[in-house]
Amino acid sequence: MTALKALSTSDLSAEARAALDGRFGERVSYSEAIRLQHGQSEAHYAARLPDAVVFVESSEDVIFVTRLCTEHDVKLTAYGAGTSMEGNAIPLSGGISLDMSRMNRILRVNAEDCDVVVEPGVTRIALNNHLRDQGLFFPVDPGADATIGGMASTRASGTNAVRYGTMREAVLGLRVVMADGQEIRTARRARKSAAGYDLTRLFVGSEGTLGIITELTLRLHPIPEVISSAVCSFETLEGAAATVIQSIQCGVPLARAEILDDVTMGAVNRWAKLDYPEKTTLFFEFHGSPSAVAEQVETVKKLATGNGGGGFQWSNLPEERARLWKARHEAYYAAVNLRSGAVGWSTDVCVPISRLPECIAETKRDLEAASIPAAILGHVGDGNFHVIFSLDPSAPQEMEEAAAINARLIGRALSMDGTCTGEHGIGLGKQKALVDELGDSVDIMRRIKHALDPRGILNPGKIFFGEKGGANGQYPGDRRP
Amino acid sequence: MTALKALSTSDLSAEARAALDGRFGERVSYSEAIRLQHGQSEAHYAARLPDAVVFVESSEDVIFVTRLCTEHDVKLTAYGAGTSMEGNAIPLSGGISLDMSRMNRILRVNAEDCDVVVEPGVTRIALNNHLRDQGLFFPVDPGADATIGGMASTRASGTNAVRYGTMREAVLGLRVVMADGQEIRTARRARKSAAGYDLTRLFVGSEGTLGIITELTLRLHPIPEVISSAVCSFETLEGAAATVIQSIQCGVPLARAEILDDVTMGAVNRWAKLDYPEKTTLFFEFHGSPSAVAEQVETVKKLATGNGGGGFQWSNLPEERARLWKARHEAYYAAVNLRSGAVGWSTDVCVPISRLPECIAETKRDLEAASIPAAILGHVGDGNFHVIFSLDPSAPQEMEEAAAINARLIGRALSMDGTCTGEHGIGLGKQKALVDELGDSVDIMRRIKHALDPRGILNPGKIFFGEKGGANGQYPGDRRP
Repeated sequence: MTALKALSTSDLSAEARAALDGRFGERVSYSEAIRLQHGQSEAHYAARLPDAVVFVESSEDVIFVTRLCTEHDVKLTAYGAGTSMEGNAIPLSGGISLDMSRMNRILRVNAEDCDVVVEPGVTRIALNNHLRDQGLFFPVDPGADATIGGMASTRASGTNAVRYGTMREAVLGLRVVMADGQEIRTARRARKSAAGYDLTRLFVGSEGTLGIITELTLRLHPIPEVISSAVCSFETLEGAAATVIQSIQCGVPLARAEILDDVTMGAVNRWAKLDYPEKTTLFFEFHGSPSAVAEQVETVKKLATGNGGGGFQWSNLPEERARLWKARHEAYYAAVNLRSGAVGWSTDVCVPISRLPECIAETKRDLEAASIPAAILGHVGDGNFHVIFSLDPSAPQEMEEAAAINARLIGRALSMDGTCTGEHGIGLGKQKALVDELGDSVDIMRRIKHALDPRGILNPGKIFFGEKGGANGQYPGDRRP
Repeated sequence: MTALKALSTSDLSAEARAALDGRFGERVSYSEAIRLQHGQSEAHYAARLPDAVVFVESSEDVIFVTRLCTEHDVKLTAYGAGTSMEGNAIPLSGGISLDMSRMNRILRVNAEDCDVVVEPGVTRIALNNHLRDQGLFFPVDPGADATIGGMASTRASGTNAVRYGTMREAVLGLRVVMADGQEIRTARRARKSAAGYDLTRLFVGSEGTLGIITELTLRLHPIPEVISSAVCSFETLEGAAATVIQSIQCGVPLARAEILDDVTMGAVNRWAKLDYPEKTTLFFEFHGSPSAVAEQVETVKKLATGNGGGGFQWSNLPEERARLWKARHEAYYAAVNLRSGAVGWSTDVCVPISRLPECIAETKRDLEAASIPAAILGHVGDGNFHVIFSLDPSAPQEMEEAAAINARLIGRALSMDGTCTGEHGIGLGKQKALVDELGDSVDIMRRIKHALDPRGILNPGKIFFGEKGGANGQYPGDRRP
């Protein structure tokens, strides 16, 4: 997207700048290229440049910057890998972008306890590469190679949340630097605790607006003895959804259950040179012992057949599985590139699974009347699905059209008792939707924000609608009707 | 325990009393018997009487009382089934005890979505009786037949948290009446959401200090096709713990894994007229398909044998299983009744599972030197265990001795990176321990409490050490060194 200078920057004072230079030397950058990199995201939001980017390497660095920001009234936004979908790390009011990527040490693997202590800048792929030899893995997989700190901040999930949960379940405890520079620890390493308010879960999903995460203790899982994958295409959406619902009701512990519509399958076929049938398709993964997995596959196959599923194929071969999930993980990029040079926009509603077929079917009808190419894919076991728009960046009316479709989609999800965001967070684009969804609860969130960050230095303009310097309808899809 | 008049009661004004009488008629009680019932608990805390008990039947009732309390500066403490272990519902400063037990309707079972919407006063056994015909169950099982609202408020868990999680994972969303009478909804019914701060998890475990829960949406699970139980005794504690750790590392999805020491087994044998070997014993439960369960049992049996376990017995028969778990559920009462007329006191530490054998062994040595009968039992899959003291109520020095042992136990758990409470909460007895465990985090909790309940009307004197009108070392086990 076009790079824009931040509409209002706090413009660092000479004194603040001197303090930054004194401590960080070459680890602070004012170059436009670096600032641009930290001012944009992969999604459809316009860039906003920070005044400076600081590459922190320790908690002490974070504490130093936070104190400096409080003293000099400078805004502070943490930045991980830049893969968020709702502009969550765009420094809307300028100030400092805190690049966490060098805090990427894996501090301690506790294999017997199935947990690991990491710094926030480690990415999920790096973490899993590190863990593999010990027979353990970290399950949360949003597709992109996000940082663990960023994933915690947006309460990310992804393809295998249906079995292993989201970042909500995956984080056992955090170290967090508060707005005033105080570092706290939210929990110790016990698997469960009833010790006071659940600060861990409060920071998970708070998008860097309440504190800066400096360390995470994560729950791990043993790598399953057998991992099997399966693919099955359906004549109808309802048949696909019913297969997943019935599998769950039969107690099949699905590790992944992904739905891809005909448009997505076509995009994937072209993007990855594959030849799947271009119909509504389910991708499954099963984890367990050889006999348990065989039994799960058998049960799901039977259910799929009963629901009009055809050509159920499954495999225990790692290369076959890798091929399947590579296709799934690239589906976002494949869908964005339905037109070359296009910009992506992903919606993110999640509804009770019983309403999913209806929600997808209505959305599909809406898309069929649209002028923009759009694909549907989702985590059907959770009731969470995405519409991926492939937008022409030179045609602002397309952004408007996508915004209108997204607004209708959110309204549809809320009418089904669902949420405007299953896993991307509120960021810039869902602030009004959050109010529509939770009403007066948002006032409670504001009170907490004010209690913990009274000067509003942490990632200002995110989550809350109507804040000074906030998005407030500047972005399509976030307008009051 | 001896009933004591509240040390400081807020003494309802005539005006407040008239307002209560006007709305509630016979649903408000000032009788000493009713007040005493609501001023005590099953545990070792002295009673403190509320000024009145109000039996609410609706959200509107709760809103009315909350507004009245705010207007007249009356303290307000919610009361469920009175089964909490840390005096969590004792109205320390008098005021109104809000009896939630008549708000016990099961509002809606959504079988396809595996969730249910309930009022807070329904008990877990009533809920499961209601669900059985639909092939679903609510897994959280703290032993006592607590109310769901109380279980949410203390972040309860119990015997099958190792597989199904605690109330943290079980609650999908809440309706809560805030201190000023505003009712909010923390989440909609989607299985996951990234919409703003996780207020659901903030209220779960907040012990009624931030708001009064008026409705809960709970996650359910399909009743497994086969439920099998097993029992195995061990020569050593280490062998028992290693069996559970290795089972988890092998990916066995244990549904329950409970440890009972020799003293507990002796108490259970006498209490329930059974004849188990009086050694460290593991009780297991396995859930799944017939072949999956058979395989799990086989794996665990092999591991148990390798770790010195003897006489591994398992059964798929419901009556055999019922007998086993009845014994486990009665273990608390059996242990308390190691002496007739005794009062119980249960400790509640939870440590990383790798440290559990060491933690239990050191504790056992401490108990062997003590003058009070004490039994150990625990949820070994979570690293959570309890010492149950059987205290002579007429011997205050026993309370002192138990307090000293508990203080050492908490210190031991904290030194192993564990928590002072796995599932009972802070209540009256762990306020100092909470500070020892989480340090400055407690200040963050206080700021949240102040932001949401600025006048401090909700369950005052709980969780926080050093508050005016709080416990502050009045209770054994909660003293500054």
